[in-house]
Amino acid sequence: MKAYALLGGPKELWPQNLPFVLTEAKRQGQLIVGVDRGLLYLSELGVRADLGVGDFDSLKPAELADLELKISDMRYSNPVKDLTDSELMARIVLRDYAADQLLVFGATGGRLDHFLVNLWQLLSPAVLPYAPRVKLIDRQNEIEFFLPGKHQIKAKAHYSYFGVASLMAVDNLSITGARYQLHHFSAAYPRVFSSNEFLAGKPFCHLSFARGVVAVILAKDLKRFDNVTPKEN
Amino acid sequence: MKAYALLGGPKELWPQNLPFVLTEAKRQGQLIVGVDRGLLYLSELGVRADLGVGDFDSLKPAELADLELKISDMRYSNPVKDLTDSELMARIVLRDYAADQLLVFGATGGRLDHFLVNLWQLLSPAVLPYAPRVKLIDRQNEIEFFLPGKHQIKAKAHYSYFGVASLMAVDNLSITGARYQLHHFSAAYPRVFSSNEFLAGKPFCHLSFARGVVAVILAKDLKRFDNVTPKEN
Repeated sequence: MKAYALLGGPKELWPQNLPFVLTEAKRQGQLIVGVDRGLLYLSELGVRADLGVGDFDSLKPAELADLELKISDMRYSNPVKDLTDSELMARIVLRDYAADQLLVFGATGGRLDHFLVNLWQLLSPAVLPYAPRVKLIDRQNEIEFFLPGKHQIKAKAHYSYFGVASLMAVDNLSITGARYQLHHFSAAYPRVFSSNEFLAGKPFCHLSFARGVVAVILAKDLKRFDNVTPKEN
Repeated sequence: MKAYALLGGPKELWPQNLPFVLTEAKRQGQLIVGVDRGLLYLSELGVRADLGVGDFDSLKPAELADLELKISDMRYSNPVKDLTDSELMARIVLRDYAADQLLVFGATGGRLDHFLVNLWQLLSPAVLPYAPRVKLIDRQNEIEFFLPGKHQIKAKAHYSYFGVASLMAVDNLSITGARYQLHHFSAAYPRVFSSNEFLAGKPFCHLSFARGVVAVILAKDLKRFDNVTPKEN
């Protein structure tokens, strides 16, 4: 089972086909998850969530009451807590529901304290083992997470660039088979090697490291016609 | 002397008064810096940069040639390099120009490999000692950087929330005098304590830590009338 989670980040950064993707996932019986205001956005899209997670303090009481009637599994977090809403959501979806994959939307943009919560949620020991099953997706970026070892980074249509970001201390980080190579880089602090490119005719390159957590960011520049802000519903 | 740097991030995320701020800074003789496409944006705003930094690969040759005629100090980076464009800019501005403060705009949004470059630029040993002089500013966030020690976090009008982000391994991180307290938190990985608030009538709170680098993010939710995307020039 795949899980699709919608968080409360700005709608302007959603992939343009997100309403279709979520409707189709629901039809196929995949797990639909709303976190905080994302639960309301799902309702507005006409996609009933299977699971709601959050403290829901951004919702009006009437909005929350309405959602509580419709959602079968509601998990409430406490604002003073060990796990953030994102961490709690990832743990429930990946451990309790045992989802094979978790695609997270609405995780970027807006308040940067929120974005960093979403980016770093997987570093918590409670969810770190599940990190390779998670992707954060917005209209210009697709972020995957890797644990130590040897990996392939796969190219994807329309994404011209990729960045390799070591999110914490890293040992022996290497990137080979790409436009810019990196050999045995180690550092005690985070670093990103941005704007790398796949080689012509090679749909993947190689990534390896011995310690740390690495995010690979597939990224694209917006074309002018992509740059139109979608109308508010 | 203060420095104002404009990077190539999406204009939609600029603070709404940025054109005024830059024009006024230029009038006062502060240092105006354009990085990559940000140099073109400054030209479009009618603000002549004193310094241009980057590989400028996002500019057309005619655009670059025109800028080269106007800007007295152009520093060219190499795409295969030790320092990113942001790091190079910070080092030139803070070390060579000895600016007291560096305000960075256009550093957020869009491609997230670019944003992480800008967020993490200050962790490089070449610029880390200067980190407390730097702020990243967009329309919803103002990010400051702190080195180990005891500090005050100052409230600022219109910013309802703040997040405290340890960007790397941290020891003994404490936040006191705020809505949510934190006492002697240590971790080997990055973490953000988001959505904290200043206490009523207290314009500051206290931050301390013994090891690491901490970013404080002053953040605000957008009001509906803030949410209008400014027209492209």
